[in-house]
Amino acid sequence: MAQEFVRAPLGVQERITADGSSPWPVEAGRYRLVVARACPWANRTVIVRRLLGLEPVLSMGIAGPLHDERSWRFHNDPGDRDPVLGIEWLRDAYEKAIPGYDKGVTVPAVVEVASGKVVTNAYKELEFDLATQWTAHHREGAPDLFPEAHRDEIEALSEQVFHDVNNGVYKCGFAGSQAAYDRAHEALFARLDALSERLADRRYLVGDTITEADVRLWVTLVRFDAAYHGHFKANRQKLTEMPVLWAYARDLFQTPGFGDTIDFAQIKQHYYGVHRTINPTGIVPRGPLTSGWLTPHGREALGGRPFGDGTPPGPPLESECVPPLT
Amino acid sequence: MAQEFVRAPLGVQERITADGSSPWPVEAGRYRLVVARACPWANRTVIVRRLLGLEPVLSMGIAGPLHDERSWRFHNDPGDRDPVLGIEWLRDAYEKAIPGYDKGVTVPAVVEVASGKVVTNAYKELEFDLATQWTAHHREGAPDLFPEAHRDEIEALSEQVFHDVNNGVYKCGFAGSQAAYDRAHEALFARLDALSERLADRRYLVGDTITEADVRLWVTLVRFDAAYHGHFKANRQKLTEMPVLWAYARDLFQTPGFGDTIDFAQIKQHYYGVHRTINPTGIVPRGPLTSGWLTPHGREALGGRPFGDGTPPGPPLESECVPPLT
Repeated sequence: MAQEFVRAPLGVQERITADGSSPWPVEAGRYRLVVARACPWANRTVIVRRLLGLEPVLSMGIAGPLHDERSWRFHNDPGDRDPVLGIEWLRDAYEKAIPGYDKGVTVPAVVEVASGKVVTNAYKELEFDLATQWTAHHREGAPDLFPEAHRDEIEALSEQVFHDVNNGVYKCGFAGSQAAYDRAHEALFARLDALSERLADRRYLVGDTITEADVRLWVTLVRFDAAYHGHFKANRQKLTEMPVLWAYARDLFQTPGFGDTIDFAQIKQHYYGVHRTINPTGIVPRGPLTSGWLTPHGREALGGRPFGDGTPPGPPLESECVPPLT
Repeated sequence: MAQEFVRAPLGVQERITADGSSPWPVEAGRYRLVVARACPWANRTVIVRRLLGLEPVLSMGIAGPLHDERSWRFHNDPGDRDPVLGIEWLRDAYEKAIPGYDKGVTVPAVVEVASGKVVTNAYKELEFDLATQWTAHHREGAPDLFPEAHRDEIEALSEQVFHDVNNGVYKCGFAGSQAAYDRAHEALFARLDALSERLADRRYLVGDTITEADVRLWVTLVRFDAAYHGHFKANRQKLTEMPVLWAYARDLFQTPGFGDTIDFAQIKQHYYGVHRTINPTGIVPRGPLTSGWLTPHGREALGGRPFGDGTPPGPPLESECVPPLT
């Protein structure tokens, strides 16, 4: 095992554009977004799709939380197959695009429905393109997640958040030595302390509205106590013991488009069930309690305009609803 | 692996008495108590010895937190040997008592210094005998840990605490199936909820003074967040998230004879370093923060007389001091 966890490169990096700069044009109904409720990288795309109201033009397939050595699998669907793509394993869509595909079979992945081929699994570019190339299909009142005036700031901040937080928790969990773990743990909590300070007197990370920077940080925070605290040993404190970040995370959880994408049971099933090198028995913990997510957060007092000049998204599609908190 | 964790029987069950009822008489300097800072069962004896002031008549050997398949080992002592018994592995003292010894090599163990033989590892009887048979050697002001009038209540309560809490956390951690884990987790937190209710308006578990019942519950509570919450998946909540039990545990931590027996680093080294079936990498987490143990607990307002008609013990022997909290 390598001393330090290194994230594998992504395998399919096409862009889907409206300006003719790629072979894949933005087109209603042409593509299917494949995600898993458990995965933080997929969660980013799920939230962006909700916030922008892209549900009617970009359908969503949901792989189950467990996967085998072959790949993510549609084990929560009838007959263990995605109802639109008709496949059991996500790997099949990667193989169709690139025969003999030998890189990671990851979510999110965008699949062209007609051909059954993966077009891209480059989540970062995908999010940017959904926000900037799919504008003709955005709902009325969709927020601007990458405001021009703040793009550099969003990018700089997201870079730090990626290394120390999003990927940082994985560096804690998959460290191959005590020293590598110690370093990752220190970097993670130092970054969380800095973010906590930044968020103490401002409601969102950049500007006074929700941006992509918030989406990126939040997907890790929402999984923190359920998965990273115990399973990945990211345990200086629980999220619930970091008051500013906990209030910030609750605020977004209670914002349409965020909490309504979260299934804590699937998150725990995935992490504890799949990483047998960390949790050999595969037993899934009963804790933590999740009812706290719905308690008042008091962050409205900081001002801010969650959706800027826009409006919150409506409720999720019935077929995409997550179970209520228990 | 068995579905449900079953604690192995103890191997050497002699009694040390003052009344001639056993071949092992109470005698100053004759025996050495072998413990490990990590172990909750040993911790009980360490606390009782401190509270009763038996240090001058019953010396203490401290095995290190790590052990190998052979047994607990004195790896923190100069030359990796206990300075009094001269042995490297505790197993040697068991073998001397019972050649071919094939049961668990556990702490606490009382060893007769001259012969190097284990006399007993029956921690429950040992505690009772230290409190009731060694009275001639108790310090002035030693508390009565088993008040006659409350023995039945102490015993009944301790029986519940043993099954659901002391041993209950092990049943969570070593469950061989999801169902066995779920049962253990439910029983553990149901019992903690009941204890929390009991302790809401009374300072100690039985009567209005510290008794053996408090010692037994406390050794598990003090290890809860450092070991059981993450490593054993006893994670509905942290101890710090159960206000009554957290205040009760802090109150005792700050009472002479309790907190001064605790070494959190050794506790974590032991659990995370030894149970490789649960934590294959052996990496020891950096968290949780421990500074909260010294914060005010407010339990004095409930009344109670910690040591009854007696007094708190003095400071620990210099050679037995634990590192300060970080």
